[in-house]
Amino acid sequence: MAVRWPDGALSSGVACGIKSGGAPDLGVITFEEATAWAGVFTLNAAAAAPVIWCREHLGEPIRAVVVNSGNANACTGAAGSKAVRATATSAARVAGCAPDEVLIASTGPIGIPLPMDAIRAALPRAFAATGPGVEPFAGAITTTDTVIKTSYHAAGGASVVGVAKGAAMIAPNMATMLAFIATDAAADRGLLHATLGPAVQRTFNRISIDACESTNDSVFMFATGRAGRAHPDDLGKAVEAVCGDLAEQIVQDAEGGTTLVRIRIGGAASEESAVAAGRAVAASALWRAAVAGADPNWGRILSALGAADRSVDITRVSVSIAGVPLFVDGEPTGELLAAAAAMESPDVTVECDLGSGTGSAELLSADLTEEYVRLNAEGTS
Amino acid sequence: MAVRWPDGALSSGVACGIKSGGAPDLGVITFEEATAWAGVFTLNAAAAAPVIWCREHLGEPIRAVVVNSGNANACTGAAGSKAVRATATSAARVAGCAPDEVLIASTGPIGIPLPMDAIRAALPRAFAATGPGVEPFAGAITTTDTVIKTSYHAAGGASVVGVAKGAAMIAPNMATMLAFIATDAAADRGLLHATLGPAVQRTFNRISIDACESTNDSVFMFATGRAGRAHPDDLGKAVEAVCGDLAEQIVQDAEGGTTLVRIRIGGAASEESAVAAGRAVAASALWRAAVAGADPNWGRILSALGAADRSVDITRVSVSIAGVPLFVDGEPTGELLAAAAAMESPDVTVECDLGSGTGSAELLSADLTEEYVRLNAEGTS
Repeated sequence: MAVRWPDGALSSGVACGIKSGGAPDLGVITFEEATAWAGVFTLNAAAAAPVIWCREHLGEPIRAVVVNSGNANACTGAAGSKAVRATATSAARVAGCAPDEVLIASTGPIGIPLPMDAIRAALPRAFAATGPGVEPFAGAITTTDTVIKTSYHAAGGASVVGVAKGAAMIAPNMATMLAFIATDAAADRGLLHATLGPAVQRTFNRISIDACESTNDSVFMFATGRAGRAHPDDLGKAVEAVCGDLAEQIVQDAEGGTTLVRIRIGGAASEESAVAAGRAVAASALWRAAVAGADPNWGRILSALGAADRSVDITRVSVSIAGVPLFVDGEPTGELLAAAAAMESPDVTVECDLGSGTGSAELLSADLTEEYVRLNAEGTS
Repeated sequence: MAVRWPDGALSSGVACGIKSGGAPDLGVITFEEATAWAGVFTLNAAAAAPVIWCREHLGEPIRAVVVNSGNANACTGAAGSKAVRATATSAARVAGCAPDEVLIASTGPIGIPLPMDAIRAALPRAFAATGPGVEPFAGAITTTDTVIKTSYHAAGGASVVGVAKGAAMIAPNMATMLAFIATDAAADRGLLHATLGPAVQRTFNRISIDACESTNDSVFMFATGRAGRAHPDDLGKAVEAVCGDLAEQIVQDAEGGTTLVRIRIGGAASEESAVAAGRAVAASALWRAAVAGADPNWGRILSALGAADRSVDITRVSVSIAGVPLFVDGEPTGELLAAAAAMESPDVTVECDLGSGTGSAELLSADLTEEYVRLNAEGTS
């Protein structure tokens, strides 16, 4: 199904020459009117130049967003900041707005000078190509993604549409991931922020591919207001549903990944400690390699849980893989064969009960494969 | 050079049938007299049954140590604790001492019942085979290690001898690693503890292979006293030198590893934050995969530093790889070709200056290879 932006927003995707082979690498979103927005950004101290630009413009209505793939413009020093400002200035000239009304996002390799001339030359073509479909934009922002990622949910009489890209350096605290969410509901930036923050917390912040927090993670939400006011609860649910869809698509398309692993932690002292326990399992290279081999290696899960929280009472812990109880209240069950068979599925659920409280959380993660190592040893990403 | 235990200590290594193919898997160390000792153990809440036993016996002089490889006896429930007690009792009978005078250590896969009968049957043979050489013992405690690991340093007129095993699940906070260090210097448990703790902190606790903290990490130190008193400074230096040698040998023999990476952090706010920054780089799957490909991907180092410490001022950070400055005071240098050539070495040094203080630390780590994933996806470890 072709997904379209809500009324008031258009986008495009073109090739400007950053990526080799003429692949699309420059996307723009335009708004007919000055539009309220909210953003959640990486907490990495090495945040990319475009992230710093967007943070500085939080709260100001905007008219356009320019996104390039193939280059993160991160750790590029003073030249990187200058490139962002120059991109905003060039885009503003084409769009007929002020540079401060233009947001910028970048994704790709770190530390390489952004080829500004290529972007500047392509901006008129990118703005001229805008239309209501999201696919050209969704394609232009991908890096090693193998599929585009979109989602749509209704919010009362309004709509919420999202587009994201993955695929590695994914452990958002706020992954490299970018997401752009637009609604035609009317919402000021206060409501947008109050809606987006918790949704990101429960979706994008609960996925991990390689436990590497990126320099460029950004989630944007825009409200064109064309459909009038939606009930905040309806809007909140739709935004969280869109974020959840996109987060799952990112993990499903994990670099080198073959298995989506849902890690459900229960019985934790708090939701926060459930998230920390889930993250520790998601980050374990040994457990992730076991998943690649369909090995129900619950010992590696327990080892990760015990390293993450030294106060865990192992005699109260239970672990199931793919519905098969392997460790119950501190005792192994020996049911390895059934679990190994169930792990041949591309979608595996791990359930861990920590036996100490009522805190719970679900995280999405992926396996660690030889293909991931191959992709990331190649020296080009 | 054949390494021998200090006077007063003997050891052996035999095959008891835990490992397939008749490989040695049971080692014992015996002491002619009741001997003072100190131990530093994993902080993992899922600590193995033998670790719990040794912790309970800290402070009491001992007469023997029984070590098996091929089975960690971790997460094995009540049966695991019973197996430790039974091993100590059987060994005590053979050695003519009390069960409380026997320490136990295990290493291997987690969660599998320990084949007690095999160990019990082999103990008389193991005790009968003891001699002054360390090699048979060093071989019997290996898992996926490809070489045995031993070290010797003089401490004044006394000697310090150490034996260790690696090879994955290595991120000691206090790796699966076991180390046994003996001296013939006279030292009570207070001096031993005061000597061993800081040495472990600066050596074994500064290595990381896969950032997975094991359930079985244990470092033991024994003092037979046969050479009389050594100066505490001499003893401290020799123990730290032995621990440092063994730690480096463990990383050099990292599971699937092809490159030893020395991560030197300087300019940190404190030694503690330098260690944290170094650990973050050592743990980055993306950086470690880049090392496997001899890719001087300094951006992944910066990303790891910035995720670990959100207060880092990136404009004051500098990063060199193999002596080639790639990022200086917030600006990329573009010297990638020289760095890539230098990274073909099996021993690569990364220097990061955080520009915020005088704290420094050096950590040893390894690359992430397809072979590591293959080894750990096989379902047997």
